[in-house]
Amino acid sequence: MSFRTDDDEPKHRAAREDALTALAVAAFDDCPDDRLRRVTQSLVRHLHAFIRDVRLTRAEWETAIGFLTRTGQISDEHRREFILLSDVLGASMLTVGVNSPAIPDATESTVFGPFFVEDAPEYRNGDDISRGLTGRPCHVHGRVTSTDGTPVAGARVEVWAADDDGHYDVQYEGAGLAGRGRLLTEADGTYGFWTVQPAAYPIPQDGPVGELLTATRHSHMRPAHVHLMVAHEAFETLITQVFVAGDAWLDDDAVYGVKPGLIADFVTHGPGTGPGGRRLEEEWSEAEFDIRLAPRSLGD
Amino acid sequence: MSFRTDDDEPKHRAAREDALTALAVAAFDDCPDDRLRRVTQSLVRHLHAFIRDVRLTRAEWETAIGFLTRTGQISDEHRREFILLSDVLGASMLTVGVNSPAIPDATESTVFGPFFVEDAPEYRNGDDISRGLTGRPCHVHGRVTSTDGTPVAGARVEVWAADDDGHYDVQYEGAGLAGRGRLLTEADGTYGFWTVQPAAYPIPQDGPVGELLTATRHSHMRPAHVHLMVAHEAFETLITQVFVAGDAWLDDDAVYGVKPGLIADFVTHGPGTGPGGRRLEEEWSEAEFDIRLAPRSLGD
Repeated sequence: MSFRTDDDEPKHRAAREDALTALAVAAFDDCPDDRLRRVTQSLVRHLHAFIRDVRLTRAEWETAIGFLTRTGQISDEHRREFILLSDVLGASMLTVGVNSPAIPDATESTVFGPFFVEDAPEYRNGDDISRGLTGRPCHVHGRVTSTDGTPVAGARVEVWAADDDGHYDVQYEGAGLAGRGRLLTEADGTYGFWTVQPAAYPIPQDGPVGELLTATRHSHMRPAHVHLMVAHEAFETLITQVFVAGDAWLDDDAVYGVKPGLIADFVTHGPGTGPGGRRLEEEWSEAEFDIRLAPRSLGD
Repeated sequence: MSFRTDDDEPKHRAAREDALTALAVAAFDDCPDDRLRRVTQSLVRHLHAFIRDVRLTRAEWETAIGFLTRTGQISDEHRREFILLSDVLGASMLTVGVNSPAIPDATESTVFGPFFVEDAPEYRNGDDISRGLTGRPCHVHGRVTSTDGTPVAGARVEVWAADDDGHYDVQYEGAGLAGRGRLLTEADGTYGFWTVQPAAYPIPQDGPVGELLTATRHSHMRPAHVHLMVAHEAFETLITQVFVAGDAWLDDDAVYGVKPGLIADFVTHGPGTGPGGRRLEEEWSEAEFDIRLAPRSLGD
């Protein structure tokens, strides 16, 4: 069997691929929303550049379609697998970075993660939010101020954290909300609550993202941390985490979320009387984490 | 309230973003599969380039997570919404192009689409595969050859097409398979079957991809076509479509699938005797479409 080949093929191929990309970009030209047009056309260009860069095979394309479909299908109200995917690809942390206010003295942001729940219970400062989560009692407290140190009263502090097995409440079948809650800062900007000492934990292994991490030998681990979201009308809302100093995974976080300024000492104490006069028959720990909020951008 | 800003902020910001991308790329360094490492690291780089290019906002990131989740959740065995998404972004057609053999005389490939079904019924040449799909009877036939014109006997020709409402069988609740089937070419390379004249149709409107097309004023329409997949052990498997000449949407195909060499005349005939001696009381149409297969690459 004979067939002719085309000596100019590489050049022609590149021209054909350029033409297809131009066609797909132009298909969004009539979008009436300038921002949506800009985002979709950029997405087309970068997606095409990726496919051309790796010369994606048909089998790989099919694998990708199946992977994305399973990622959607395993998701529900309490399991948000596409957030995990965004997290492990660094897309979440990059989006945090792109949107961080350029205020050097403000507490840094980090990833939101997939385990936030709306309408967590309201607490008062000093309350215990663990509600039966197992682990060593842990008191987290600090002061919320502006970047010049002025206390911020009435800021909403939203907290969520895992137990000593590294699981969040929503990962236990049928469990109620635990280890999460909402507080308001006092007149002097202070906040404080009891929870349990958080543990490092692996990202869920039983879904598409876990499979990807296993296949690529990517870190599955998140160093121990407590999530905090702090909101006040005069300031940028801060989404961050407090990491436990000395954790083995601080330098190998699966989602690239650790920043030096977010690491706090979780100091161990023997049995005795803790903050708020709480009597403790066991060891407990304590972490202090002050938060400096950036002023709200005028452009928002 | 005072706060200091950083004069070097744009430079520092770019450096921080570069560092994060480098960290996320390096997280895949230990992948034992060279190809998977190459693909995942390229994906991270291009995804990050997209986020930086558009300075993706947090609200847009949330919209994207929700969009992807819904795209997976509306999918099932017969509705593959991520294929649709890939199609309308031009990713499917680009993957086809990247993988097309560089054989100028071979029939061109185009997108696979989301409506293929495994294990379609077997037919003989001359059979009617419409099985109750409504529309004007249409006879499609041609010859499968190598690029030098040698007939290819025993090639498997897989066919699937929509009815005159532009719907595939799987889009009708509870309907069996219709308008799809598998044939083998005769000793002289010929194939032929009766179906119904296909119609142009909109991509499904009731899912996330339909919403995206509406919001961006992107074409929803696919020009009328019949899907063909032709396989033989000595040749590259061809995935293509035959388009109906004169269709209003040939230049505005939602998935960029039309190529000039894939357009055929669908000739209308009055009532009378059609191919194979079939008696027709109504108008019917006929399309001839010859197929030239590329030899199988030695590298595969």
